[in-house]
Parts: sequence; C-alpha cells; structure tokens
Amino acid sequence: MEKVVLSEKFSSFEDTWNPRIIAELNGQQVKLARLEGPFVWHHHSDEDELFLVLEGHLIMELRDRTIELDPGELLVVPRGVEHRPVAEGPVKIMLFEPASTRNTGTLDDALTRESLERI
Amino acid sequence: MEKVVLSEKFSSFEDTWNPRIIAELNGQQVKLARLEGPFVWHHHSDEDELFLVLEGHLIMELRDRTIELDPGELLVVPRGVEHRPVAEGPVKIMLFEPASTRNTGTLDDALTRESLERI
Repeated sequence: MEKVVLSEKFSSFEDTWNPRIIAELNGQQVKLARLEGPFVWHHHSDEDELFLVLEGHLIMELRDRTIELDPGELLVVPRGVEHRPVAEGPVKIMLFEPASTRNTGTLDDALTRESLERI
Repeated sequence: MEKVVLSEKFSSFEDTWNPRIIAELNGQQVKLARLEGPFVWHHHSDEDELFLVLEGHLIMELRDRTIELDPGELLVVPRGVEHRPVAEGPVKIMLFEPASTRNTGTLDDALTRESLERI
C-alpha cells in the first residue's frame, strides 16, 4: 500500500498508445497513457471506459459527433459505443476501466496491446 | 454522454465531507469531495477505495503509519484497512469506488451520508 505519484509514473515511459497499469481495485484498473495522433475506431462489448485528460487536448470522435477534452475533464464512453481518440499533439490521460478491457476492444489491430505492463 | 468538467462540478458545491457523484461506470462511481479538517476512523468491508488529490494536501492516517498526498498523487486503501483522512486546509479529491461504498464505511457517525447527490 503505497501512494502513486502520477508524474513519476509518466517519466518511466515515453511510447504512445501503450497504457500502463498503475493501480487495481474492485476488479478495475487505473491506467496511464501517452497519446499522440489518431487511434483506431473500436468499441468494448462489456466495458464502460473512463478517460480523464491530465495534459494536452484530446478529441474523442464518435460516429455521430465529436467531444473535445482539456485537462481536468473526463468522459465515460459506455460499452458498445464506437469511438476513436485523436490526440492533436502530446496528450496524457488516466483511464479507469475493468481489468478485462482490451485497448482496441473487439478490434485486432497493430495497435492492440494484449498484455499491459504494471508500473 | 457528455464530458464532465471537474472545475464546474466543484463550483456547484461548497460543503466538506459530502461527496458528489459525477460519473458511474461498471458498477463503480466517480465522486468529487471537498475536505477540510479531520474525518473519522473507519473502514469499508467490501470496497477498495481510491483517493486522487486534485488540490491541497491530504494526510491519510493508517493505524501503523501515515501517507501524505499532494496534487497528482493517488492512494488505494484496500477493503478492511482502517483509515482516517485529515485535510490540513482545503483539499479537493476525486474518489473511485463501488457504487455500494458508504462514506464512513461500517461506522455510523454524524458525518455519514446515506445517499449522495448526483451532480
């Protein structure tokens, strides 16, 4: 049982679209990720996904509209909803989602990360 | 499905030790709270609890030690672990925890909030 310093965790990795697990509780995981550029369209069948922007500007494309997020803003994407995160410049986010959540959801893609590092 | 602006949510209430629900996902809730002064010793039987400090300095007293948290730092208090949050000055936090979580855990106290407002 130790505190987690977000800035220390971010300084331990540089790659983008590769979330790291920083905490686990109640079957859920807290993850940090660096984003830059566009991700892929995907959805999660059984998991709602929370995005909290810590730095930068995140554009969440949905099929019918776009939601833009600045630091201190969060969005819950419900299960089943197709979404594509796009980062215009470097973005740092925190994710809160079930431990079962795959980063590209039901999609198999070059960006899929089957197992995430715990830092 | 709308984004949540944390600063807007905080500007909608002033009282302390009275968490507000700002999002729900996967049976979990995201809450915001203002803290000031000492809370009560308590524990949660079945819920792990995440504290993320957004502003101020939070002291988490445990029975065997104390963990101090500044903005950008988080702590998961596992189920069953007695804890007492103490805020030296005004503190703003975000909580992630199961929807079943009672603020004073198994303790009945004047500070117990049986039902929380959704803002």
